Amino acid sequence: MYPVSSSDLAAAMARMNIDDIASATIRQILALANILESTRTEPFVHLEMGNPGLPASEIGVEAEHEAHLKGIANKYPNIAGVKALKDAGSRFMKSFLDIEIPGRCIVPTVGSMQGTFTLMMLLAQRIPGRDTVLFLDPGFPAQHHQAKLLGINQRSIDVYDCRGAALEARLEEAVADGRVTALLYSNPNNPAWFNFTDEEFRILARVADRHDLVIMEDHAYLGMDFRRAYGTPGRAPFVPTVARYSDRAVLLVSASKIFSYAGQRIAIVCFTPGVFDRRYDTFADFYDMPALGDAYVFGVLYCASSGTCHSAQYAMARMMDAACDGRLDFVGQTREYGRRAALAKKAFTDAGFHIVYDRDGDEPISDGFFFTVGRHGWNGPELQRELMRYGVSTISLPATGSLQEGLRVCVSMLSDDTVFAHLRERLSKFNRDYPLSE
Amino acid sequence: MYPVSSSDLAAAMARMNIDDIASATIRQILALANILESTRTEPFVHLEMGNPGLPASEIGVEAEHEAHLKGIANKYPNIAGVKALKDAGSRFMKSFLDIEIPGRCIVPTVGSMQGTFTLMMLLAQRIPGRDTVLFLDPGFPAQHHQAKLLGINQRSIDVYDCRGAALEARLEEAVADGRVTALLYSNPNNPAWFNFTDEEFRILARVADRHDLVIMEDHAYLGMDFRRAYGTPGRAPFVPTVARYSDRAVLLVSASKIFSYAGQRIAIVCFTPGVFDRRYDTFADFYDMPALGDAYVFGVLYCASSGTCHSAQYAMARMMDAACDGRLDFVGQTREYGRRAALAKKAFTDAGFHIVYDRDGDEPISDGFFFTVGRHGWNGPELQRELMRYGVSTISLPATGSLQEGLRVCVSMLSDDTVFAHLRERLSKFNRDYPLSE
Repeated sequence: MYPVSSSDLAAAMARMNIDDIASATIRQILALANILESTRTEPFVHLEMGNPGLPASEIGVEAEHEAHLKGIANKYPNIAGVKALKDAGSRFMKSFLDIEIPGRCIVPTVGSMQGTFTLMMLLAQRIPGRDTVLFLDPGFPAQHHQAKLLGINQRSIDVYDCRGAALEARLEEAVADGRVTALLYSNPNNPAWFNFTDEEFRILARVADRHDLVIMEDHAYLGMDFRRAYGTPGRAPFVPTVARYSDRAVLLVSASKIFSYAGQRIAIVCFTPGVFDRRYDTFADFYDMPALGDAYVFGVLYCASSGTCHSAQYAMARMMDAACDGRLDFVGQTREYGRRAALAKKAFTDAGFHIVYDRDGDEPISDGFFFTVGRHGWNGPELQRELMRYGVSTISLPATGSLQEGLRVCVSMLSDDTVFAHLRERLSKFNRDYPLSE
Repeated sequence: MYPVSSSDLAAAMARMNIDDIASATIRQILALANILESTRTEPFVHLEMGNPGLPASEIGVEAEHEAHLKGIANKYPNIAGVKALKDAGSRFMKSFLDIEIPGRCIVPTVGSMQGTFTLMMLLAQRIPGRDTVLFLDPGFPAQHHQAKLLGINQRSIDVYDCRGAALEARLEEAVADGRVTALLYSNPNNPAWFNFTDEEFRILARVADRHDLVIMEDHAYLGMDFRRAYGTPGRAPFVPTVARYSDRAVLLVSASKIFSYAGQRIAIVCFTPGVFDRRYDTFADFYDMPALGDAYVFGVLYCASSGTCHSAQYAMARMMDAACDGRLDFVGQTREYGRRAALAKKAFTDAGFHIVYDRDGDEPISDGFFFTVGRHGWNGPELQRELMRYGVSTISLPATGSLQEGLRVCVSMLSDDTVFAHLRERLSKFNRDYPLSE
C-alpha cells in the first residue's frame, strides 16, 4: 500500500494547490498527508506536526472551570494579564530559570504565535531605520512567515557552522550595518534540538549590549534538554537563558508544549525590566505612550485581540504555581518525548540516514521533541517528497531557514508501538529501494 | 466630593501620560477614572467602557467544561474552526438573518478585534493599488487604531449628514479614485446606535458591486435594535444585513455582547462565498494560495495566533445552537440595555444635553448599548474633560471618526439604581454650574 504512486502524490498536491512541497506550510503538509492516507488502510506516520501528544494537565482544566464558576466569561480580560498569571509567571521564572522578572513585566498572549507576531510589529518600530529581525536558524517556519506577512525585513544566520566562539564574528557581521532591531531564536532549538552553551549565551548578551538589540528567546520547549536535570523548583541546574547575562531580553513561554495545553492558545511574554520600561520617542509619537511595555499592551495587543481568553489565563497561572510548589513535574511528563526521539533516531540511522545538527560544543545533542535527519545524495525537498510516498510526512530544512540538506522530524505524534513499527518498516523499504551508493 | 478639582484631574492625566484626553484610548480613560475615583468615597459613573455587564450564558460555560472533559486542551484547534462552531454559525445566520453562509465560509477569531485586524491585513493586499479602508463613521475607535498600526490608509465618511439616498453620492465620491479595497461599519452603529435602512443597505451593495469593494459588516450588537422584534429563529423580521443584496460581504459576529461572553475572546467571521472562494493572483504569489479563504485561514490567522481557544469555540457553538433551538433568547436578554439607555438618555436630556445622532430615516433611533450626546456651546473634548471632573467618564466623538461635537455614552455599566442616581445628580449639578445660555 505504500509507496503511493508518483501520480497519486502529484494529484493530491495539485488538489491542495501545492506547487513546491518545500514551501508548503506545516498545516498544508498535514492536510496533504491526510488526503493521501484517506485512500489507504494504514495511516501515515506524521512527523510534520508538533501537536503536544500528551494529555493536558488536569490542574489547568480544573482552574478554568473554577474561574468560570466565579464568573469571568462576561468580563473583558485585563489586556496586561490577570494578576494571578502575572504573579505565577514571575514565580515560575525565579523557580526554574533563577531570574527576576516582576509580574508587571509579564503579559499573556494568544500563544507564543501572537507573542512573536506582535513583538515583531513593535520592535520594528522602536528606532527609525532598525527594520530588520535577525533569525538564528534553523527555526520555526511560521516565524519567518510572520515577518514576511508584516513586511518586516529578515536576515538569517544558520548556526550550523558557527557554534561556540565562532558565533560572535558571525553575529557581528550580521548586525554591522545597524539595521537589526532584534534577534529571534528558540532554545532548545526548533527543529534541530541543539541548545546554546553558556559561552554562546554570553556572546549573544555581549553582542546585544554592544549594538542595542532586543533578544526574543522562545522557550516553547522549556526544560526539555533531558541531558540535564531541570525542573526542580528553586534548585540548580536552572534552565539557561540569555536573560542571566543581559537586560535586553524578552522570553516567550507557551503552555502548549510545557503543559500540553496548545488547544487553549495561552502563553506569557516575559520582558526584562530594561526592555519593558525603556522609553522611545517613536512610541510617544505613534502611541502617545513612550514606554515599550505600555505601547505593547495598550497599543499592539489591544489592537490584535483585546487580550487573551480569561479562563485560559487562570489555567496557566494555576499550572505554573503547581510547578513551583513541586506538585506538577512538567519536565518529567515531557521526558516521554526524549524516549520517543531516541527510538525514532535509531529507526532513521538504522536505515542509512544521519543526524544533521548533531552536537552542542563537544557533546551530542539532547533527545527531545524534534531532530533533523539527512541522507547522502539527497537534497531536503526531494527527500521530503519521496518520503511522503512512503507514508512518512516531514518538513524539509529549507523551510526552517537552515542551509543544510535534510528534514525536520517531530516525535510528538509517535504515540504507540504500531506507529514506530510503521516507521521502521517504511524507512527500511525506502533504504532497500534507494540504497546508499557507498 | 465631585467635581474633582482641575489640578487633581491634570495630575492624574500627567500620571497616565495623557496629554490630550480626546486621543486617549478607552482603556486609558478607564484607568484615569479609576485613579480619580480611588481617592473618593463614591465611585465614578462609567460610561466609557463597553463591558457586557450581564452574566455570561451558562450554556456556554457548560459547553466549555464538557469539551475540556473530552480532552481538547492539549490539541491545537483547527485554524479554520471546529466543525460544531462552523455548523452552528451557518445555522445561526440562516435562523436570524435569513442568509445562506456555508460552514466552510465561517472561521473563528479571537474576538472580532482579531477579525477586523486580520481582515484589514488581507484586504489591503488583494488588489495592487487598493490600499485603503473606508470607514462609515462614527465607529469603534479601536478599528481606526488597527488600520493605523497596520500602516493601512484610511478614509472616513461621517454619515451624520448623508443618510438615505444622499449616501450613494458620498460613497461614490469616496471610492472614485479606485484606492478603496473595503468598507467597514457596525450595525447597529457603535457608538451612535443608528441602524442603516433597507434603502441604505441596497446603496451599499450597489456601490460595492460597481467598484469591486468588500464590505466588512460588524454585528457586535446583533439583534439589538429593540424597535423591531428580532430574535425569533426562522421567523421574520430578520436582522438586516448587506449580505441580502451583495455577495461581497464579510460579517463579524462576536459572542462578547450577544452572549455576554467577552472574557473568552471568541467571535466568528462569516464570508459570503463570493468573497471566500474568490481567487487572486496576489494571494497566489504571496501565500501560494490563490483563494481568499485559504489565504485568510492558513496565511494570516495561522501567523496571528494559530487559531482560537478550543473550549471557547465549543461555547459559542452551543450558545448559537441553543439560540436557533429557541432555548436561549439572546435578544430578550440584551433588551436590558434598551431599558438602561432610555433612562440614561432622559438623565442627559433633563440636564440640557441633546442626542447627536438621533434618527434613522424618519424615525427616532433605537435605545441600546450606546448613544451620543452633545451640549450647545461645548466641543466634545472639553465636554468629556469637564464631565470627568463630575465623576462621569465618557469617550468624545472625535475619537470615533465623527465630525460632530459630543460624547459617546455606553450604558453597559449602569447596573443599578444607585448608579443612575449618581448620574442624574452629577449631570444636574453640571447643568447648574454651566447653565445653557438660552
